[in-house]
Amino acid sequence: MNPFDDHLGKNPANAVALSPLSFIARAAEVYPNKDALIHGDLRQSWGETYTRCRRLAAALHRQGVGHGDAVAVLAPNTPATYEAHFGVPMSGAVLNTINIRLDAATIAFILEHGGAKVLLVDREFAPVAAEALARMAHRPRVVDIDDPQYEGPGQRIGEIEYEAFLARGDPEYAWRLPADEWDAIALNYTSGTTGNPKGVVIHHRGAYLNCFGNAVASVMGPDSVYLWTLPMFHCNGWSYTWTMALLCGTNVCLRRVETRAIFQAIKQHRVTHLCGAPIVLNMMVNAPAEERALVDHPLEAMTGGAAPPAAVIARMEVMGI
Amino acid sequence: MNPFDDHLGKNPANAVALSPLSFIARAAEVYPNKDALIHGDLRQSWGETYTRCRRLAAALHRQGVGHGDAVAVLAPNTPATYEAHFGVPMSGAVLNTINIRLDAATIAFILEHGGAKVLLVDREFAPVAAEALARMAHRPRVVDIDDPQYEGPGQRIGEIEYEAFLARGDPEYAWRLPADEWDAIALNYTSGTTGNPKGVVIHHRGAYLNCFGNAVASVMGPDSVYLWTLPMFHCNGWSYTWTMALLCGTNVCLRRVETRAIFQAIKQHRVTHLCGAPIVLNMMVNAPAEERALVDHPLEAMTGGAAPPAAVIARMEVMGI
Repeated sequence: MNPFDDHLGKNPANAVALSPLSFIARAAEVYPNKDALIHGDLRQSWGETYTRCRRLAAALHRQGVGHGDAVAVLAPNTPATYEAHFGVPMSGAVLNTINIRLDAATIAFILEHGGAKVLLVDREFAPVAAEALARMAHRPRVVDIDDPQYEGPGQRIGEIEYEAFLARGDPEYAWRLPADEWDAIALNYTSGTTGNPKGVVIHHRGAYLNCFGNAVASVMGPDSVYLWTLPMFHCNGWSYTWTMALLCGTNVCLRRVETRAIFQAIKQHRVTHLCGAPIVLNMMVNAPAEERALVDHPLEAMTGGAAPPAAVIARMEVMGI
Repeated sequence: MNPFDDHLGKNPANAVALSPLSFIARAAEVYPNKDALIHGDLRQSWGETYTRCRRLAAALHRQGVGHGDAVAVLAPNTPATYEAHFGVPMSGAVLNTINIRLDAATIAFILEHGGAKVLLVDREFAPVAAEALARMAHRPRVVDIDDPQYEGPGQRIGEIEYEAFLARGDPEYAWRLPADEWDAIALNYTSGTTGNPKGVVIHHRGAYLNCFGNAVASVMGPDSVYLWTLPMFHCNGWSYTWTMALLCGTNVCLRRVETRAIFQAIKQHRVTHLCGAPIVLNMMVNAPAEERALVDHPLEAMTGGAAPPAAVIARMEVMGI
């Protein structure tokens, strides 16, 4: 018998759940006017981003989405994908981001297996999404994301565009933290190298703790500017989606991982941090010299998976990264 | 019904407890040879510090201390006080650090109310401790801390000295994380401004989360050098005791909060961060000019409680802090 138990109320029923959703409410309160997202010409503050996430949660709620439902996203690293990381779980639902490199059959498998009630799809990936939906017996409702930064091919296939969908939602939607911090926040699928993709579920508590681990490992703070060279659909961008809200730093979106766009963003926005698989670092060290010369200040790159070759690390360091 | 519950095992019985004790095991593994503690001429690595904490836990265990017992410490900011923050809870016990400015009657009240089984007492505070013990019906076992950095008055009053006590303990003691993260880790008393001191209990989970909050708020990392101008007995040094192990940074101990010692330590050890109540900052801005001139690099001061006057903040900034 621990005499201190009386003072504690162990595992209290009214304990506040650990959840990364608390981060964005705090970011909007502490840094309402600070840049949360940069995407092309767009600069969007933490205050605006939080409001848009609440609109998304409210619009999903109106659509009948609730606790335990899945909402899928098929989109590159855009503000909409970022906002879905907060807006979807704020509605009580589980976020299922899907790898944009998958084929229609695999996407259809994931949508059916995860039981998505709504699919948000970027116009660039509407053709493969349409093909996936055509294979399915029970289809999710579809919301098109028509990113102003994208001018390539692809037709809208849904009932409504993302901005109009947000406009339906209450900007002051009274979302709630999960009743249980072990509730699922996101569902990610493997790429199915050995048979069908396997789903991996992460809970609010795990995502919350990952973010603090990221913050300590990266020694990033509110002045950090993070470039999205790692896909947000890849383990929720190693949880850096939510981590950036914890830090109240700035996200620089990137639709396509190409060296010219990477180096231009580094110079233009004075990027301080980026993440990437070794292949991304390899692309960077092998980029044309005039692109590499755009790195005019020191920054940090975080990598994972297989260790990059020593030569890649050495050449990154020569660039000042 | 949440379909994702099946994948989770909610609130799993085998979940690893959130506890700051995990930080020092990791620090010793990742940075075994990096300075954990500087105290006068002493430089002690994270590997050595972890071993000493395990010895302390084992020695307490041999003394019959276990889950739910309290172990009190009456000492300034020395390595022993720091080690107690890990060694005491590793034994399963609750750490009760006591304000060194209290009188014998108040110390006796706290020792009896908290039910300390063991008291670690620095030789400088042995006289007041002896007076407190003389007032008590049920006295704790006493271990003397005879800090080589202290050459002032005070006699040993216990059965054994701290270093000999550590020598009794197994350096590879197999301590365990608490079975329940809501278990108490520390017990702190108010100074009794309105009647008897009131005890405040903090649990392993709360301490763990405080540390990550500190890390994010301070943007400190493994290169940070932290000067102990805030008492470790004051809310466990705002949890910076455990936070420094999370960060794998370096602690600079300080027996006495005097401006000459503060400024010398800042210069000698290239201190990057310190905490202090507004009164400490006030002492610093009013120190002799030749002391203030010792600040030859920028550093950060974190303060709390009542906001310091604007003039104090302005004069700290002039110093480069």
